[in-house]
Amino acid sequence: MVYDTSLFGAARTVTLPGPLTLDGGAVLAPVDFAYETYGALNADRSNAILICHALTMDQYVASAHPLTGKPGWWTAMVGPGKPIDTDRHFAICINVLGSCMGSAGPASSADDSKPYAMRFPVITIRDMVRAQAMLLDHLGIDTLQSVIGGSMGGMQVLEWAACYPERVRSAIAIATAAKHSAQNIAFHEVGRQAIMADPNWRGGDYYADGEPPTKGLAVARMAAHITYLSEEGLTEKFGRRLQAKPGQETGAKSFGFDADFQIESYLRHQGISFVDRFDANSYLYITRAMDYFDLAEEHGGLLANAFKGTKTRFCVISFDSDWLYPTSEAKTIVRALNASGAEVSFVELSSPFGHDAFLLDTPGMNATVDGFLKAGEGK
Amino acid sequence: MVYDTSLFGAARTVTLPGPLTLDGGAVLAPVDFAYETYGALNADRSNAILICHALTMDQYVASAHPLTGKPGWWTAMVGPGKPIDTDRHFAICINVLGSCMGSAGPASSADDSKPYAMRFPVITIRDMVRAQAMLLDHLGIDTLQSVIGGSMGGMQVLEWAACYPERVRSAIAIATAAKHSAQNIAFHEVGRQAIMADPNWRGGDYYADGEPPTKGLAVARMAAHITYLSEEGLTEKFGRRLQAKPGQETGAKSFGFDADFQIESYLRHQGISFVDRFDANSYLYITRAMDYFDLAEEHGGLLANAFKGTKTRFCVISFDSDWLYPTSEAKTIVRALNASGAEVSFVELSSPFGHDAFLLDTPGMNATVDGFLKAGEGK
Repeated sequence: MVYDTSLFGAARTVTLPGPLTLDGGAVLAPVDFAYETYGALNADRSNAILICHALTMDQYVASAHPLTGKPGWWTAMVGPGKPIDTDRHFAICINVLGSCMGSAGPASSADDSKPYAMRFPVITIRDMVRAQAMLLDHLGIDTLQSVIGGSMGGMQVLEWAACYPERVRSAIAIATAAKHSAQNIAFHEVGRQAIMADPNWRGGDYYADGEPPTKGLAVARMAAHITYLSEEGLTEKFGRRLQAKPGQETGAKSFGFDADFQIESYLRHQGISFVDRFDANSYLYITRAMDYFDLAEEHGGLLANAFKGTKTRFCVISFDSDWLYPTSEAKTIVRALNASGAEVSFVELSSPFGHDAFLLDTPGMNATVDGFLKAGEGK
Repeated sequence: MVYDTSLFGAARTVTLPGPLTLDGGAVLAPVDFAYETYGALNADRSNAILICHALTMDQYVASAHPLTGKPGWWTAMVGPGKPIDTDRHFAICINVLGSCMGSAGPASSADDSKPYAMRFPVITIRDMVRAQAMLLDHLGIDTLQSVIGGSMGGMQVLEWAACYPERVRSAIAIATAAKHSAQNIAFHEVGRQAIMADPNWRGGDYYADGEPPTKGLAVARMAAHITYLSEEGLTEKFGRRLQAKPGQETGAKSFGFDADFQIESYLRHQGISFVDRFDANSYLYITRAMDYFDLAEEHGGLLANAFKGTKTRFCVISFDSDWLYPTSEAKTIVRALNASGAEVSFVELSSPFGHDAFLLDTPGMNATVDGFLKAGEGK
C-alpha cells in the first residue's frame, strides 16, 4: 500500500493501474477515480468514514459542486460539529464507477482515446464497492470507522459490509433496500427508454459531436423525481396551486399546455437543471447497476448469508413516507442482520418528504447517526 | 328531440350541429360522436345505462376493438346475465370528447378541412359530460337508470351527477377521485413532456405527413402503466424474474441494456402496443382534462355543494391496492355525499392489482354493481 498525504484534500483525482475485474466479466485497467475528503486522517488511521453517494449525486458532499456552484448535498450531516464531524472524522466520498464526475464511466476515454460510450462495461453495485476498496487501498486506509449512505449509497453500504466485513467497523444504511423491486426496475426502465428514445442519444455516441439527449434525460429525471417525493409531501408543497405567469398576481388555468400547476413548473425545472450536471449514458449504467442489485441472490438466495459471522455494527434508518424504498425493505435487512447475529440498531423516522428525507435535515436522522457513531467511539 | 331507432346498434357515429360551449370559452360546432350500444332501449326509455370510459379506453366496452381485434375492455361487467345485463339494460358508451376513436378530438378536421391538432380547444371533464348529454338528447334518452365508470370514467360519473342530477337516477363511481392530486398531475406531466420531447411530435402537426411521436407516446404509456399496478401486484406477477431470450430455457443477466427482467419486457410491450391504437395529441388533451378536474372547485370549494339536494343514489367503490386513486379519495367523495344528504353505498374491495382492478373480474365488484342496480329496479 502507498500512503501519500498529498492525496488528501479537496477535489482529488487519481488513476490506478487496476486491473478491476467486474461482475460481468470485463476488466478495467487503468481505473480513474475522483473523490473529495473532509477532515484529517488520524495517526492510527482509525477515523475514516466512507460516504457512498446516490444515483445522481457525487463526491461533493460538503463542498460546492463545480458545475452548479451549489453547496454539497449533505452539509446537514458532514462538517465541523456535525454527526460526521470533520474535526474528529476523516470523511471521504468517491464518485461511483459509471458516473460522470471524474471516476471511470461511459464518458471516460477508452484505449482508443475515444469515449467508451456504450462500450463501457455494465457494472454492478459490487463493482462500485470493489473500485472504492481499490482506492482506499491506495490511500492506505485499511479499516473504516464507518461506511454510510442513503438510497443507492445504502446499497453500497450493505455490499461493503458483505464483501469486506473485516474492513468495516460500522455500517449505516439509510432509505435503502437489499434488492431492487419490480416497481423500482419499472421506473428505471421508463427513464432508460426516455433517454434511448431521444434521437440525440444515437446509441450513446453523442460526446464528440452533436447535442446530448437532454430532452430524454430530463423526462427520465422527472419520472424518477416523482418517486423521490411522497404524495403527502407533494400535496403539502404544491397541491393544485397554480403558477403565476408574468404579469399575473395569482395563477389561472391557461386552457393550454403551459405549466399551469406549480408541480408542473417544479418538475420541468428538475428535468432541465439535471441535464446540465449529469451524463445520460451514466444514468443508463447506474440505473442498470441498481436494477441488478439483489444482495440475497449473491449469497445463495438468503440475505442473512451476506452478513454471516459479521462483527460490523449496523444502523438501519427508514422514513415512513418513503415509497421508493419503504420501511418494509429496511425491515427485511434488519431481519437478515438479526438472523446472522449482527449487532443492529433500526429506526423508522417520520417525515412528510418521502425518499428525499435522507438528503434533508430530517429530525432524528442526524441524532441517530451522531449517537451511533459516538457509541462506536466509546463516547 | 329526435328519436331515431336506427341510431341504436353497434359502431354508430353521428355529427350534431352543436354548438357545444366549452369551459375554456371555445365553441365546437358541429360535434362528431362515436358510440356503441348494447341491449335494447325499453318502451318507456327507463333502462339506459351510460358507461363512461377511462383515459385510454374507448366505446368498445363489450365488442371487439376495430384496430386491435381484442374483446371489449369490460366484458366482465357488460353482457347477457352480467351486472349490466344486455337482456335487461340498454348500455351505451360514447367515445369521450378529445379522444381518437371517432368523437371530436385533435385528429378531427377543423373548418379548414385540416386536422385540428393543437388548435383543438383544451377541454374539461365537464365538457366531456356536456357533450355526452347532447348526444343523449339527440337519442331521446332523457333519464339514465345509471351512469357508471372507473378512473376518468368515475370523474365523468361524478360530473354527471353534479351537472344533471335530474337525469341520473343512480351513479356508480369506481376507483376514482373528485380531483387530481399533485402526484396525479406530476405523472401526467411526465407523459406529456415525453410526447412533446419526441421530435416527431412537431407541435402536434404530424397527421398529414411524417411519423407520429410513437416513441414519446410509448414512454408516456410506460410511466402511466406503472401507476395502474400495485407494487404488490408487480412483485407477484414479475418480481425480479428474468426474461428467457431466444435459445435460452431460463433468463440470464445480459450485462447489457436488453430487457433482462420480465417487468422490462412487459412495460416495453405496453408502450409499443399502445401507440398502434392511440393518438398522442389525444393523450395530451385528455390528461389535461383530468388534471384540471376538481369538482369542489367548480362548486365554491365545497365538494358537498356539487351534490346539494340530489335524489341520485350513489355507489362508490375503491380498491385497497390502488395508489393512483386510493381509498382516501373515495372516502372524500363519500363524506361529501353524506354531507349533502345523498343516499350512498361505499365499499373498499380487496385486490392485489392496484388501479387496474376495475378493469378485471375483481371479486366483489360485479356483485356490488349487480346488487346496486337491482335494488334500484326494486328487485
